[in-house]
Amino acid sequence: MVMGINGEFPGPGLRARVGDTLQVNVTNKLHTEGVVIHWHGIRMKGRPWADGTASISQCAIAPGETFLYSFTVDKAGTYFYHGHYGMQRSAGLYGSLIVDVAEGEKEPFEYDGEFNLLLSDWWHKSVHEQEVGLSSNPFRWINEPQSLLINGRGQYNCSLASRYNSSAALPECSLGGGEQWAPNVLKVLPNKTYRLRIASTTSLASLNLAIGGHNVTVVEADGNYVQPFSTTDVDIYSGETYSVLFTTNQNPDENYWISVGVRGRLPQTPQALALVNYLPNHASKFPTSPPPVTPQWDDYNRSKAFSNRIQGLEGTTPPPPADYDRRIMLLNTQNTIDGLTVWAINNVSLSFPPTPYLGALKYGIKAAFDQTPPPDTFPDWYDIMSPPANPNATTGNAIYTLDFNSTVDVILQNANTLQPNDSEIHPWHMHGHNFWVLGYGDGKFQRGDEKLFEKAGRRPPLKNTAVIFPFGWTALRFVADNPGAWPFHCHIEPHLHMGMGVVIAEGVEFLADVPRETLSCGLTGMMFSGNGEEGHN
Amino acid sequence: MVMGINGEFPGPGLRARVGDTLQVNVTNKLHTEGVVIHWHGIRMKGRPWADGTASISQCAIAPGETFLYSFTVDKAGTYFYHGHYGMQRSAGLYGSLIVDVAEGEKEPFEYDGEFNLLLSDWWHKSVHEQEVGLSSNPFRWINEPQSLLINGRGQYNCSLASRYNSSAALPECSLGGGEQWAPNVLKVLPNKTYRLRIASTTSLASLNLAIGGHNVTVVEADGNYVQPFSTTDVDIYSGETYSVLFTTNQNPDENYWISVGVRGRLPQTPQALALVNYLPNHASKFPTSPPPVTPQWDDYNRSKAFSNRIQGLEGTTPPPPADYDRRIMLLNTQNTIDGLTVWAINNVSLSFPPTPYLGALKYGIKAAFDQTPPPDTFPDWYDIMSPPANPNATTGNAIYTLDFNSTVDVILQNANTLQPNDSEIHPWHMHGHNFWVLGYGDGKFQRGDEKLFEKAGRRPPLKNTAVIFPFGWTALRFVADNPGAWPFHCHIEPHLHMGMGVVIAEGVEFLADVPRETLSCGLTGMMFSGNGEEGHN
Repeated sequence: MVMGINGEFPGPGLRARVGDTLQVNVTNKLHTEGVVIHWHGIRMKGRPWADGTASISQCAIAPGETFLYSFTVDKAGTYFYHGHYGMQRSAGLYGSLIVDVAEGEKEPFEYDGEFNLLLSDWWHKSVHEQEVGLSSNPFRWINEPQSLLINGRGQYNCSLASRYNSSAALPECSLGGGEQWAPNVLKVLPNKTYRLRIASTTSLASLNLAIGGHNVTVVEADGNYVQPFSTTDVDIYSGETYSVLFTTNQNPDENYWISVGVRGRLPQTPQALALVNYLPNHASKFPTSPPPVTPQWDDYNRSKAFSNRIQGLEGTTPPPPADYDRRIMLLNTQNTIDGLTVWAINNVSLSFPPTPYLGALKYGIKAAFDQTPPPDTFPDWYDIMSPPANPNATTGNAIYTLDFNSTVDVILQNANTLQPNDSEIHPWHMHGHNFWVLGYGDGKFQRGDEKLFEKAGRRPPLKNTAVIFPFGWTALRFVADNPGAWPFHCHIEPHLHMGMGVVIAEGVEFLADVPRETLSCGLTGMMFSGNGEEGHN
Repeated sequence: MVMGINGEFPGPGLRARVGDTLQVNVTNKLHTEGVVIHWHGIRMKGRPWADGTASISQCAIAPGETFLYSFTVDKAGTYFYHGHYGMQRSAGLYGSLIVDVAEGEKEPFEYDGEFNLLLSDWWHKSVHEQEVGLSSNPFRWINEPQSLLINGRGQYNCSLASRYNSSAALPECSLGGGEQWAPNVLKVLPNKTYRLRIASTTSLASLNLAIGGHNVTVVEADGNYVQPFSTTDVDIYSGETYSVLFTTNQNPDENYWISVGVRGRLPQTPQALALVNYLPNHASKFPTSPPPVTPQWDDYNRSKAFSNRIQGLEGTTPPPPADYDRRIMLLNTQNTIDGLTVWAINNVSLSFPPTPYLGALKYGIKAAFDQTPPPDTFPDWYDIMSPPANPNATTGNAIYTLDFNSTVDVILQNANTLQPNDSEIHPWHMHGHNFWVLGYGDGKFQRGDEKLFEKAGRRPPLKNTAVIFPFGWTALRFVADNPGAWPFHCHIEPHLHMGMGVVIAEGVEFLADVPRETLSCGLTGMMFSGNGEEGHN
């Protein structure tokens, strides 16, 4: 069962120009579930209530109701949208959103045509069953996806690539024509340059994409231009977007595979494939060369090398402020609470409250969430290389309140999970902001590790999603210049469900008002609608 | 996957005394779904907002929120409670509710002990998938249940009764002890009289219950005393409750089966069983006599004879008013709308609006639902014995507004479905009222059929649920004396989902107020919370 939009899965692709104001009416046709739509990567400057996050920017849209998302897109790039309530993104609630440069403006690179690949992963078990399993004792993990999808198309129980692989456990797929899972075909002309827009909305999988026989040049990441560099393949974590250029300079008598495979977890899912079809070849001409092999899933040095190549493009990306006003250390741990398995940040597992933070902050409703701020750091003695000595954590919903326009550093510190010798990849995504990725490091962040930020004139890229590697740290810097309340969380859907996130807020006092139709639930609902007492008779 | 309450399925049994005010806090711990709880059979006099019907008496309780149901129980009897949003009842959201006579009062019959059997049916396919199938083109029916349940316990892939049945398609179940599906054991002493309270919250199945070797005496139906009568077995339709007495006058060296099987649809589900364990026999002593055989599913004459035996008990049940002020004829048909299969009443398929009727009526929000009343009757020429000549119906949400304290007759008219020679059973349940069942008839209700109401001094029983038989009609009378808005609908969950219901309202102007926490959605949410405009910036 899939959640669709306007009868489509993935949802319809949206395309706009810088400066456009998008007005998107979302009508909830689900039977008993609320819904919201988050516009991933759009900063929502001055309109934090349009961010589309249940419990944070608005009350969920009730069945039968319509909510108008109205916001301006102010930066060209590759984005996407998706559900941000429970695990509805995993249920299929996503689509692509592309913002073109303003009329008369030019991108800092040239190309002859473009294609858009929205990547996701897919389970046969329903999202409701997944949610219940994750919230149960004993814990039931969602396990690896049954399929990877490119624009909603994948394979199961067979593989298009199996003829190349003598050890393939999967039989070869046969295509009769017209199959809805048939791979996307990218029709190209020889000796042209194409832009491939790639976005990953996976629930779990970290991915790697490559085009058989072709290098690609990375030119954009998360809606920001990057210093172009050539590579055989692209790592892409959930929540990230990239644009890459490729030139059709290979043997024009052949077609070529694009392959997408799993990294960072032992893969149990067949690659997703798409076909680069050199015209005038027929699309049914099977490539003679096999799909690119996805790099070894746990070759993290290779992954780190890729991530470190991403740099801001001078002239388009400002450098970060020279120093920070506040540094927040966020320790990522796996813990237990009342027998449940959770993720915690500085020992607090995030549990979203029924009253949205934005309205609670604007109208001073202190009972809406814990008023004691969460810790800015974790104990010095914490051993990130071992399972937590005391695995118990607490549930909380307090927030990090940031001084408006201050510069904030976040050091995301990875650690060992509840299993010995195990640490996982977590792509952290921030709403409402782009951050500079100052650097990645191994082990525990130490005083003096700041020198690693300054590697060989590297220009920190601006992104909205950055990964932490197993047993490593990632340093981010951003300016708290966007009034609102914003989640900052692991983009792996079951990890967020298990509490892996924080909420930041800044400058809410500068918002003239918060639209009341975002506030019809919880204590904000009561605030506007009476005395909160039941029974007048 | 099941929806539980306080970690239990079925939900905890509630027990109160006449005159008690129940205060039930319902906290929604679902991840993305709203929820409400309906108190089936409780009339909610003066407190229609506590009826627990989404779109009618209140906005659904959002995840993380708590709603206090506060209401008085004013009539002893056997009741139950259940979800009333989407098809959540089918997901397992139900439990029993028993109201004892006030201290010092006596029932009009005597017994030595009592047992409580809550009957339901169960599917392996999730309710979400069922809902989507019913709302799809092509239509996907839910089919017959995988199990029948007694107090949440049933069988699948095996049958406790199979050793008696040489043609049994199911293997025999083996009990190792401690199985959660193991049948309920009713421990009894010889030569005593027991009260068996029976309630059916099935999604689909019409049921028949019998106790091997024992007759039962019916004494209560839907929380009203009835003229006692003895019978070998009891028909029970979804939404009905009964109390029956049985005396343990059989061979005390034996144990006996209680069996529950399907009627009214070709059964594809094993009987549910419970054990009457004559002490001091051990419960593991297998009955020597087989479980009672459920009567032939389509022996409707037998079913009608049973229903006609239910009469009000003089001295406890007033007779109906002699005449009606208004008669409403409700034709039940299966239809199509935009390729979807629906049920319609007088050609209108009910679609619940996002704004609850009760608040919309109280505060005069006319945009909340269609203001043109639905038809009070259907065309004379309609041929109930054939599939609809023009199967198209319309969707609507208009209501029947009744004069306060007027006497209203409803003639529920059954008809052929979209399939030739097919008409189904529909148990109609009315909220906020008991009605007198004036009579049942075959074919199309005709002028003069009122004489059938007066059969041989029959005293019409008071009920809240009454069945219409295939190709037949059922005549009901009630007094519109309960200010509020009330659904009146087929209690078969997928049929209500497909639009088989109407909404009646009366005397809302006499309500001093409607609690605002029931109104935080739709247009009532907007009414209390601002100007309805998005975007103040």
